[in-house]
This record gives sequence, structure tokens and C-alpha cells, in this order.
Amino acid sequence: MSDDRQAELKALLEQPPVPTRRPTVPALEEALFRIHPVLDHGFVRVVDYMGDDAAIVQAARVSYGSGTKAVRNDRGLIRYLIRHRHTTPFEMCELKLHVKLPMFIARQWIRHRTANVNEYSARYSILDREFYLPAPEHVAEQSASNRQGRDRVLTTAESARVLELLRRDAMQAYDTYSGLLNDTGDGTPADPGAPQLARELARMNLTLNYYTQWYWKIDLHNLLHFLSLRADSHAQYEIRAYADVIGELCAKWVPLAWEAYEDYRIGGAHFSREELDILRQLLAGGDADTLLPASGLSFRERKRMRQVLQLGPPKR
Amino acid sequence: MSDDRQAELKALLEQPPVPTRRPTVPALEEALFRIHPVLDHGFVRVVDYMGDDAAIVQAARVSYGSGTKAVRNDRGLIRYLIRHRHTTPFEMCELKLHVKLPMFIARQWIRHRTANVNEYSARYSILDREFYLPAPEHVAEQSASNRQGRDRVLTTAESARVLELLRRDAMQAYDTYSGLLNDTGDGTPADPGAPQLARELARMNLTLNYYTQWYWKIDLHNLLHFLSLRADSHAQYEIRAYADVIGELCAKWVPLAWEAYEDYRIGGAHFSREELDILRQLLAGGDADTLLPASGLSFRERKRMRQVLQLGPPKR
Amino acid sequence: MSDDRQAELKALLEQPPVPTRRPTVPALEEALFRIHPVLDHGFVRVVDYMGDDAAIVQAARVSYGSGTKAVRNDRGLIRYLIRHRHTTPFEMCELKLHVKLPMFIARQWIRHRTANVNEYSARYSILDREFYLPAPEHVAEQSASNRQGRDRVLTTAESARVLELLRRDAMQAYDTYSGLLNDTGDGTPADPGAPQLARELARMNLTLNYYTQWYWKIDLHNLLHFLSLRADSHAQYEIRAYADVIGELCAKWVPLAWEAYEDYRIGGAHFSREELDILRQLLAGGDADTLLPASGLSFRERKRMRQVLQLGPPKR
Amino acid sequence: MSDDRQAELKALLEQPPVPTRRPTVPALEEALFRIHPVLDHGFVRVVDYMGDDAAIVQAARVSYGSGTKAVRNDRGLIRYLIRHRHTTPFEMCELKLHVKLPMFIARQWIRHRTANVNEYSARYSILDREFYLPAPEHVAEQSASNRQGRDRVLTTAESARVLELLRRDAMQAYDTYSGLLNDTGDGTPADPGAPQLARELARMNLTLNYYTQWYWKIDLHNLLHFLSLRADSHAQYEIRAYADVIGELCAKWVPLAWEAYEDYRIGGAHFSREELDILRQLLAGGDADTLLPASGLSFRERKRMRQVLQLGPPKR
Repeated sequence: MSDDRQAELKALLEQPPVPTRRPTVPALEEALFRIHPVLDHGFVRVVDYMGDDAAIVQAARVSYGSGTKAVRNDRGLIRYLIRHRHTTPFEMCELKLHVKLPMFIARQWIRHRTANVNEYSARYSILDREFYLPAPEHVAEQSASNRQGRDRVLTTAESARVLELLRRDAMQAYDTYSGLLNDTGDGTPADPGAPQLARELARMNLTLNYYTQWYWKIDLHNLLHFLSLRADSHAQYEIRAYADVIGELCAKWVPLAWEAYEDYRIGGAHFSREELDILRQLLAGGDADTLLPASGLSFRERKRMRQVLQLGPPKR
Repeated sequence: MSDDRQAELKALLEQPPVPTRRPTVPALEEALFRIHPVLDHGFVRVVDYMGDDAAIVQAARVSYGSGTKAVRNDRGLIRYLIRHRHTTPFEMCELKLHVKLPMFIARQWIRHRTANVNEYSARYSILDREFYLPAPEHVAEQSASNRQGRDRVLTTAESARVLELLRRDAMQAYDTYSGLLNDTGDGTPADPGAPQLARELARMNLTLNYYTQWYWKIDLHNLLHFLSLRADSHAQYEIRAYADVIGELCAKWVPLAWEAYEDYRIGGAHFSREELDILRQLLAGGDADTLLPASGLSFRERKRMRQVLQLGPPKR
Repeated sequence: MSDDRQAELKALLEQPPVPTRRPTVPALEEALFRIHPVLDHGFVRVVDYMGDDAAIVQAARVSYGSGTKAVRNDRGLIRYLIRHRHTTPFEMCELKLHVKLPMFIARQWIRHRTANVNEYSARYSILDREFYLPAPEHVAEQSASNRQGRDRVLTTAESARVLELLRRDAMQAYDTYSGLLNDTGDGTPADPGAPQLARELARMNLTLNYYTQWYWKIDLHNLLHFLSLRADSHAQYEIRAYADVIGELCAKWVPLAWEAYEDYRIGGAHFSREELDILRQLLAGGDADTLLPASGLSFRERKRMRQVLQLGPPKR
Repeated sequence: MSDDRQAELKALLEQPPVPTRRPTVPALEEALFRIHPVLDHGFVRVVDYMGDDAAIVQAARVSYGSGTKAVRNDRGLIRYLIRHRHTTPFEMCELKLHVKLPMFIARQWIRHRTANVNEYSARYSILDREFYLPAPEHVAEQSASNRQGRDRVLTTAESARVLELLRRDAMQAYDTYSGLLNDTGDGTPADPGAPQLARELARMNLTLNYYTQWYWKIDLHNLLHFLSLRADSHAQYEIRAYADVIGELCAKWVPLAWEAYEDYRIGGAHFSREELDILRQLLAGGDADTLLPASGLSFRERKRMRQVLQLGPPKR
């Protein structure tokens, strides 16, 4: 964060709170205007929020009227809604974040179309010399089995070489970018004899690990969907790091919804028709080492089924 | 509103406000938990809101960075954004309403797909005997020139007859509905010897002027778009009545955005390529009575052009 | 369907096909311009479609490039995509339907916001005297255990009484509607001495079982989501009837995607964290009659688990 | 395009067309499977389409029923729809494109959330050594008056220096990328002694002018909105180049809709409340040189008003 921005946040934090009649979550109020660091230069901070656990319940009771009175308490109703995929009450809560993130992650993130976004524009303004370099323990080989994954972490020497190359190219890219802009920051040229290339052109020379930032606003239903995909073990580590921080903020904001989400979505498992059939046979006394190889399941499906059900490895 | 609901709102209003660090709009806080009546039994009330005029500016400054510093103040920047259709900063504000409205209006309203909705469900719950009857001054003839509009208001005698028929059918529909449900309200049958028809079936007997209600949450950009269509003179009176009330709430909530919206969207006018061409000729001294009839504009387009430009009626 | 419309469809069917280079599905071409009846007066017909199973594969291969070459054939890739919730390739197919349906069903259906819709407007035009009456075998009591469901089918005498009341009110509502419009169909009044009430007002007198119609266009991913909710046993029978017909059309259109959807989405089952835990204990030899009652699962969850896993009823 | 892909397209073009009953547009069929080059290595090609001008009319007639019969022909109805912002019938047509474009343009483009997208993933696959370099006549200085625009085109010598720097950094970025991947293309390492960095990491070293590609599917209403923003003179040249090509394809596909769009949206102009007020005074004989400076309009607004109305420069 620039010094300007930090001073601005500090000033906001020093302002006394104001009274409101809106639903308010003290645990999340604590997090407002605070920086939650992610990766080497990134962050997440909560700018604003609307609603709380009670707002979900309130919306559901509007929909289902007296039909929801049978459910005794808020926790029970929220769990019922998650279980039965009654998703609309969760859309009644909204979270607004300020996120700083590398551009190659921003490109993944933006694919979720159900959010509102205002991104820093390098057509208008000049980006800082800030780029992402992974910590050595996250520099890993391409996985052979999983086309989109990482595998063995590189040795210290190997990763040092990788990081040095990434740093060198990022630094050179910025030197060129900055030279082409030829702008001391207030519009006057550093070199009066040279042109000032249009910002919308100069930016193309930056590498994809440069940081951008945006305001990102999304409702709770779509946020949980985003997190279920991006906090997943198959997601790229760098976006997972953001999803994990946002998940912690969510747990403060709507603890009952978060608990239900973890119990029903994250901690659970889905079985296909064929897997369900095998499951029934296993419960009826069938032998996994016989049933699984004889099934039409792929190697990966069989492996995942053994893991999820804790069946242990095949005996032969 | 049911007595239960009214007591609930009264209790909410009596609760002391709580402190928050979020952007807060005192003028809209005043409106929270208050009923704004619309039509004979409908209402709008603000349940929650996120953001204010400053939040629009803040989001724009994230996007355009130092590029927005040249615009001196918030009002100027907001007007600039509206003028140039930079719509994303307006998506950073969100409004949540509780609305009670007749079903034939709900069917129009729901066509706006960019909102979050939780509607009272007559599959789960029993609707009250509340239906819309227009005030006599809104009972009007079909327009011959405008296929979707009203024309001459009926005479007192004529409208009394119309209203009597509407009332009779609505009352009878409810009697049947209620008889088929055969439910005293707590699940016990009014007539123990008769069946209790499934709610999801009985509801089909209600007429479209019965009231439903929903929670409706939308961002400011899409709200302004909704209002530009539904507060328009071509919109049906009954939905316009809601749009007008929501517009007044908007003016309290985001006064600068509202002013800019009125100046640039509502108070303005769009001219087609051909209309623009005629306009230029008029400014160069051309005669409307010659130019307009000779143009390819339709009768309606010519009429609208005369009105908007205050050219007066054709002299011949 | 009106005679006009039937003649129009017949004419379309008699036109010779034209050549195209686009992906074409002969089995679905057969269904084009044909009426698939639903309920007593409703229908579904395919107006147009874009893409086929191969288009899903093609889009996936653009995304995953050489990463998808390992998957040997189209069927395998489509199953992989469904299994791993890679949903975007399914958005590359699009289906356009013409649907005639009762208004109370239209109100449920429209809640799916991801489709394009053009609905017949009763502000502009006059609705026909066509309303839905359930077949006697679908006239059922309110379920006591499930707030949104049906239970015992009424006796012949009971349902005859229900249907007679529904018919009477619908007929009377239309008589009033028609009288208020006072329009012989071409704009001239039936009764020259009476006013012609604006259509946008008169329509409010119709009951919710009157038929409306719309063009409805949606991509395959969102269509499958719609069907997973609306062809479900918890959905109201009347909308399920439509979902079932659309499902059959889908099976003709994209047979591989449909098979994968049935195997992985419909035929499968999801277990929560706690259910999964119990499942592991059952597989390790635990006793359902001991484990289930001791768990924190609700009565309904326990019942559903027994059903899905075919555990049989509790022994005590 | 890779040789593989070109061979594939050639094969598709050689396949005989198949019969269909769907609306078909011969002029667009001609464009199917053909590459429309954009920038130095980019392209647009039509993969599929749904609907035509008649499909817009058909959908409108479903909505407005007999209310549209008064409009005599398809052209008139389409112009009426565009004029009155009845946008839903235009959503009934759909276009699917395959686009190859630089990543900094892809980042602008993707902000339009109403499309379906499948993008080539550099997590799975390896990008080619293809990057964008502007033609010398598009290498221009930053505009001082317009924060997001270009101004003076650089001299030959200046632009040669800029392009040389861009080329140098892009080449080096790819050398590093390729070295880190250490993959000859089939998974075997070029240097058996070195690690193969995970693709999802190596990609961060590429500069933003590298080309990516995607399938992009959108309905006609949203496409026209996209084009109105991206074919605009304020849009960055590089995205305008794509918008222009897509516009030409649109004109072949739906010539009546395109003509109406050009006449009413592109060729027209919008005036604010205040501008309209001045316009009326000008028409009543007022003097622009007196009225404009005395108004509250900004310098830019006054300038734009003079241009649009062809008032000429101020006389003093």
C-alpha cells in the first residue's frame, strides 16, 4: 500500500463509529479498514458488508412464511436451507472487499461473473513496481498425473534459480515500462527530450505477476460458491491463499452460515450413481478389492472413493 | 401488514442504534423500518443499504487512480461517471427493500433479472384476503393509439361498475381458495369432514390482483436502470407508483447520484441519426413544418420531436 | 394453440430444410416445430438450438488445450467435465423453447434468472379463455410433514367438487375480463354503449391458472441446473411435467451430456460431513440402528440416509 | 493459428453442408470457419450462431401479440424495438466466436459479464511465442487532456525504439518461460538435468501482450451493448479493431437490426436536461456564443455540443 493509502486507512480507523439501525456484526466491524496480508505484497480488506446470519433467516421467513416456524432456531433453519439448496436467502447478504493481487490470479478470479468489480486501470494510472515472487516452498514441479497441478517442491538451489529469473525479467519489464512512460509521477517527463508513451500501450510490457487491485462486491451465496471452488485443494495455491483469508472473514461475519457451509458443502462428499451402487454393495458386506476393480469407475474415481471412505489401499 | 409484523417493526424501531464504522446515511436511517404506503394495500420499506455517494467516488478513484484527481469534487466526478456511462462504481452501492405488491405487478417487476429476491411462497403459506382495486381516477379506457396504454378515465358510474365486478370476483376467488384450504390457520381444518387441498394447488384460484410480498435487493446501477424504465410515463401506473416511492428513497440515500441521474438520464433526450440531422438543419435556419414532413420519421417520432424541442404544433 | 399458429407451424414443417455448416443434431431437427403437449392445454416446442455434444468437447479442448488430449474420447471428456464441475463448456450450447404454461407455474419458472424470455403481454393483447385444471389423480391434500408438498390424492367425489369450484371461478373471471375489455377482437366494442377497459387493468381479474406463453432461451449448463431443481421429486407436479418433457428433448439433443448428468447429478447423492462420518463407521462394521439415533442427524436426514443407502427400516 | 488448427478448419470447410430446419443466414454461413485477422496475430472467427432478423421479430410478436400487427413489416418493427429499448427480443439471437487476442485486451473484454467464455488455460497448456506489437502508426503519446487516451503518433525513430524494447522484453520473457517449463512439447524435458516448473507458475513471467484465445458466446442485445462501448472512439484502438470486425459480421448476420442500431444508437446523440434547455433556446433564436459560456456546462460538454450540432467554433 502506498503511504497515502495507509494514512487514509489510519484516519478512517481513528474516526469514531456512527450509530446505525442496520444489522451490525461486531466481529466484522473489528476487521474493517484493516489489512489482511496475502502472498508477498497482496492483501484483502473488508470495505463494507450488508446483513448477517439473522438477515438470512429473515429472508427465508419471508419466503416460507409460517412454513418455517416449525424450524426451532436460526441455526437449524440455516442448516436446512444449505442442505436443501434454498440459496436465495444467502443472496441477501453482501460483502465488499478491497483486494490486491497478481494479475495472473486476477485473470482466474474475474471468471466469476456474479460480482461487482472496480479495478485499478493502467490506462489511466501508473502501476507501482510490485510483483509477486512465490516463497521457495511454493516453487514446485509440474505434476505429471494432474495436468493443472504442482508436484515436488524444488530444491533450494533450483528454486533460487527460478526466483532469480522471475525477478530479473519482472525488474527489466518495469524498467522498460517506466522508461516508456517517461513520467515523474505528476505528468512531467523524466527525460524532456523523449516521448511519453500512452499508458494504455506501455502497460503491455508488464509481466503477469505484477500486482493490480480492485474493489470486489458479491453476495454470500455466490461468495460461498466462489470459495468452494477456489479454496479447494485443486485450486492454484496463490488463489487459495486469498480464498482462505476470505473464508476466515466469512466465519466472523456469518458464523452460522459458515458452519453449515463447512458441514454440508466442504466436509461432505458427492457420489455418482455408480459409486452409490458400489457403496450399497459394500454396506451389504461386499469386498472393496473385488467390487472396485470390477466396476466401470476410472482409476482416479476408485482412488478418491477409497480416500473419502477411508477404505485403505487395495490389499493386493 | 399483519399485526405480528407491525409489532416486530415497532420493536425494531425502539431498539437503540448500534455503532458501526461503515458508511452511514442519516437521512436513510430515518426511513429504516418505516412503511411507505403504495396503492391501496401495498408498501415499500428499506430493510438495509450498503454505501453512499462517497462509496461511488471511492470505487471510481480505485479504478481511475490519479486519473480522477483532476475532477475537483465528488459531485463533479459522479456527474462525469453518469455522463460517460462508467456504470461500475454505481454497482458498489446496494439497497434492500421489503415490498408488498399485486401479483400482476410482481410479474412485470421480476423481469428485471439483476436483483436478488425472496418472495412469500403460497406453496408454503396462506395468503391474506388482500387484493388491489384501483382508485376510481385510475380506471381508464384502453388507448387506441398506444397499444399498451390507458386513455380516458371512466365516468364515476362506469368505474363504480368496473370496481364492483373486480371486487366481487376477487372476493369469490378468496372464498373458494379459503374453503379449499380448509385451514383455520394453525393447520386444523375448519370443516373436519372435508379435505385440506394442497396449498400449491389452491393458490391457482386467486386472481392476479392479490398482493404478494418480497425482499428485493439490487445495486444502484441496476436500480437506476429499473427506475428509468418503470418510473417512465409509458410504464403502467401501478408499477410507476412503486418506482416513484423508491426514487424518493434513492434521493435521500445518494443525493448526488440521484441529481446526476435526473439531469443526464431522465431530464435529457436521445436523438437518432436522422433526428440529429434534422436538428442541425433546424439550427441552420430550416423550417420544422417543411423539414419534418419531408423526413423519413414516423408520425410518432415527429410528434415527440416537436414536444421535446418545444417546437409547437405544425402551423398547417 | 390458435388456428393461425397451427397453420404457421404446419407451413414451417412443410418448408424444405436448408443447408448449414453449423453443428446439427438430426434427432432434435425431428422435434423442431412440433408440439409436445404438457398438462391440459400447455406445450413445449423447440424453436432453435445451438451446439451439440461435440461443441462441449470443442470448447473444453480450447480451454484445456493439450491437457485434454489424455482423455480418449468425447464421452469420457464430458463425464470428466460434469464430475469436476467444469461447467463453462456446457454454456456453449443453447436451447430456445416456446412454452405455454399456467401463470402460477410461470411465476416459479421465472425465478431462474439466467434465461432470456419474451412473454406474451396481456398489456398489449388479449388472453384466450384457457385455464389449467388438474387431472383428478393430481388433486391431493396438503402434506402435514412437508410444508410444500402434496399427500393423499382426493377421492373421486372430493376432487370433482374441487375441480368444479376451480372451473366456476375461472369461467366467471374470464367472463368479467372479457366484458370489461368489451372488444370483439379487432378493437370494435361488443357493446357500443360501454367503455373498453384498458387491457393492463382488465387482466388483473384473471385467476393464476390461466395460461400464458413465452419464448425461453437458456444455455445447457443453466438448463441442467434448472432441471435438477424442477424435475426433482420435491418440485411441484405441474412444473415437473414441463421439466420431464424438456429432459427428453435434452436427451435427444446432447445424449452424452445427458447421460453424464443423470449418472453424476441425478442418480448420485451428497453426504454431509456428519453423514460421511457415519458412513465410514457403517463400512467399518458399525450398526445403523445404534449409530443413526446417536448421531446429531435430524429425523429427516436419518430417513433419507436409510433410503439412499438401502439400509432398510430400523429394526426396533 | 497452429498448423493443426488450420488443417482442422480446412477439413471443416470441405465438409458438405447438412440440412437444417433452423433459421439460417447464408451471408454468415459464408463466414463460418474462416479466419478474420485482427492486429498482428489475432483473429475473430464465427463458430456458430442462433437466430436472424426474423427471430427478433418472431419473439417480439410473441410478447406483444396482436399489438405488433400494426407495424407493417419486419424492418419497421425492429426499428421500433430499438427506439423504445424493448431489448429482450434481441436476446433471442446468439453468436459464438473464436477470438485470439492479447492478454491486456482480454482483461478489458472480460469485464463484460453477460457472455459465456472458455479461455485457453496456461495452467494446463503451453502458450506459443506470439505477442502483440503495435504497427508504428499506432504507437502514440499519452494524451494530456484525456487521461485514458493517445495523442500524437511517435516519429519513425521514436516508435522503432519503443517497438524494439517491447520486442526484446517479450522475447526474453518467453525464453525464460520456456526454459522454466523445460518441456519439448510432449512432456519430456529439453534438459533432463533440470526441473520442469509447474505451468501455473511459469506463466506469470509472460508479458501482457502475449496472445491468448477463447470461445466467446453472447446474445445480440449484449453484443450490441459491448460494441457500443468498444467500437466507440474512446475505446482503446486494440479492442476497437476487434469490435469493428465483429460489427461487420453482425451486419451480415442481422442486417436490419444492425441498421437500426447504427441509426438509433451509434449515429444518434444524447442531450442532458441542461443541454436540452440550451438546444431549445438555440432553436428559438438564441446565440450559441452567448448561451454556451453562460451555461453550467463544462468545457468538454460545450465542445462536444458544438461538434454534434455542427455549430462551428466560438466566434470570439
